[in-house]
Amino acid sequence: MPLEPILTVADLNRFLETDFSEVHTDGKIFEVIATGAGFATMRLDPQEKHLRPGGTVSGPTLFALADVTAYITLLAHIGPVALAVTTNLNINFLRKPQLGPLQCTCHILKLGKRLAVLDAAISELNSDELVAHATATYSIPPR
Amino acid sequence: MPLEPILTVADLNRFLETDFSEVHTDGKIFEVIATGAGFATMRLDPQEKHLRPGGTVSGPTLFALADVTAYITLLAHIGPVALAVTTNLNINFLRKPQLGPLQCTCHILKLGKRLAVLDAAISELNSDELVAHATATYSIPPR
Amino acid sequence: MPLEPILTVADLNRFLETDFSEVHTDGKIFEVIATGAGFATMRLDPQEKHLRPGGTVSGPTLFALADVTAYITLLAHIGPVALAVTTNLNINFLRKPQLGPLQCTCHILKLGKRLAVLDAAISELNSDELVAHATATYSIPPR
Amino acid sequence: MPLEPILTVADLNRFLETDFSEVHTDGKIFEVIATGAGFATMRLDPQEKHLRPGGTVSGPTLFALADVTAYITLLAHIGPVALAVTTNLNINFLRKPQLGPLQCTCHILKLGKRLAVLDAAISELNSDELVAHATATYSIPPR
Repeated sequence: MPLEPILTVADLNRFLETDFSEVHTDGKIFEVIATGAGFATMRLDPQEKHLRPGGTVSGPTLFALADVTAYITLLAHIGPVALAVTTNLNINFLRKPQLGPLQCTCHILKLGKRLAVLDAAISELNSDELVAHATATYSIPPR
Repeated sequence: MPLEPILTVADLNRFLETDFSEVHTDGKIFEVIATGAGFATMRLDPQEKHLRPGGTVSGPTLFALADVTAYITLLAHIGPVALAVTTNLNINFLRKPQLGPLQCTCHILKLGKRLAVLDAAISELNSDELVAHATATYSIPPR
Repeated sequence: MPLEPILTVADLNRFLETDFSEVHTDGKIFEVIATGAGFATMRLDPQEKHLRPGGTVSGPTLFALADVTAYITLLAHIGPVALAVTTNLNINFLRKPQLGPLQCTCHILKLGKRLAVLDAAISELNSDELVAHATATYSIPPR
Repeated sequence: MPLEPILTVADLNRFLETDFSEVHTDGKIFEVIATGAGFATMRLDPQEKHLRPGGTVSGPTLFALADVTAYITLLAHIGPVALAVTTNLNINFLRKPQLGPLQCTCHILKLGKRLAVLDAAISELNSDELVAHATATYSIPPR
């Protein structure tokens, strides 16, 4: 049962801008760059304010990247109508990233009627060395 | 073996300001309000930019509150020298808070030589209805 | 809104025996010893087969204790009719216990219509030094 | 930096039998079936006693499968000398498996000096529909 996205990358970026604009209060730093069967990928361009001493990207910024990408991946497959809510997010911080753009790819592990579970892999752009890895659960309202 | 803090509330707020100033890039919204045997409590005054549609505080903001409070609780008990690093954080989002100040109390579950584990309970200020609950692990560098 | 149990310790032990007998395939090693507003406590008497080299209780045994106690705590407050299912369990192993009986106390962090979240604190019997700490989510079928 | 295993499948099964025999107190139900760059796969043949009402494999059994496979995957890459200890395991239960053999594949997400992080994907044998997904952290003693 292949799970195909029903929204395009352009749809998803439009949705980010119109319905989820609070992720952009700091400037347009989040961008959807790919989607496909069961997954989506975002790019984050961290700003000075997202850094911790030593120049590494802060934990809350990595958390936000994992959470937004998982949410976008879910919407890509169920459509923008649903108001899914994060109920649980478990994140492991693995390596300090260099300063520069990050990418996050999320895969759907389960898409049930009431719950969806996704994992999120964060690395530097075009690298496959993991910076952080997360698993998130979303509660999906009755459709 | 009662675990007593070695830093005061004033020490901890000073540390926040001088060494951890990136949590204040959005204004002074985090404040340590209590510490004692094995715990510390912080207060967060969310701003417009920390809200999601519907007026609820965003997930990354709650994550940041849990992470900063756990870090401060750890430092209160081992002193400000250590450069502890979050390695894992698991958070459950339980209820949408009303608009207004939040509090977070962290307790030390384990303080080992290399790892510390703490839990974090977030509620509205002066309420005991939980908004979110987290468990976090910190790696402590050799002392 | 105080959350009071609707089942007694005797009710819960009867339920364990009749409806959940697979936890007793290794002998009667699990016993409910207390319940009250929002919590329940179980006792586990580990057997030879639950030990790891060095005489410490195995991870799966501690997992089982946290999971069964959380399930029993939930049933104590919603009644034995529901077929709740564990959807997520996050466990931190904190200290190696001595050989001997363990206790686990679970508190309800949230009891929603569709999801319940509980935490679990495991220690040696009558000790307050934590051996392990867990947080678990249960999906509750429509009632 | 490709991470290659230094132990073979036969080595790992021998280790399971001689040094980790407590996983076999219920009979030889765990078997290593593959290893390669950064991963290992185990097979579990559940017995009657591992089932819950309705014939599904119990949570503690799935936990044990994830934990043992992650441990074996780690040893495959660092050798059998280390006495690594599970410090955290987060598991999501996704679907109830049919009665029958299960497989679990673990990948190393990070192999540091002091901590290793792995993920675990459990499915029915030769299926790619996930039954459960876990992330585990191991503390590695000084080498």
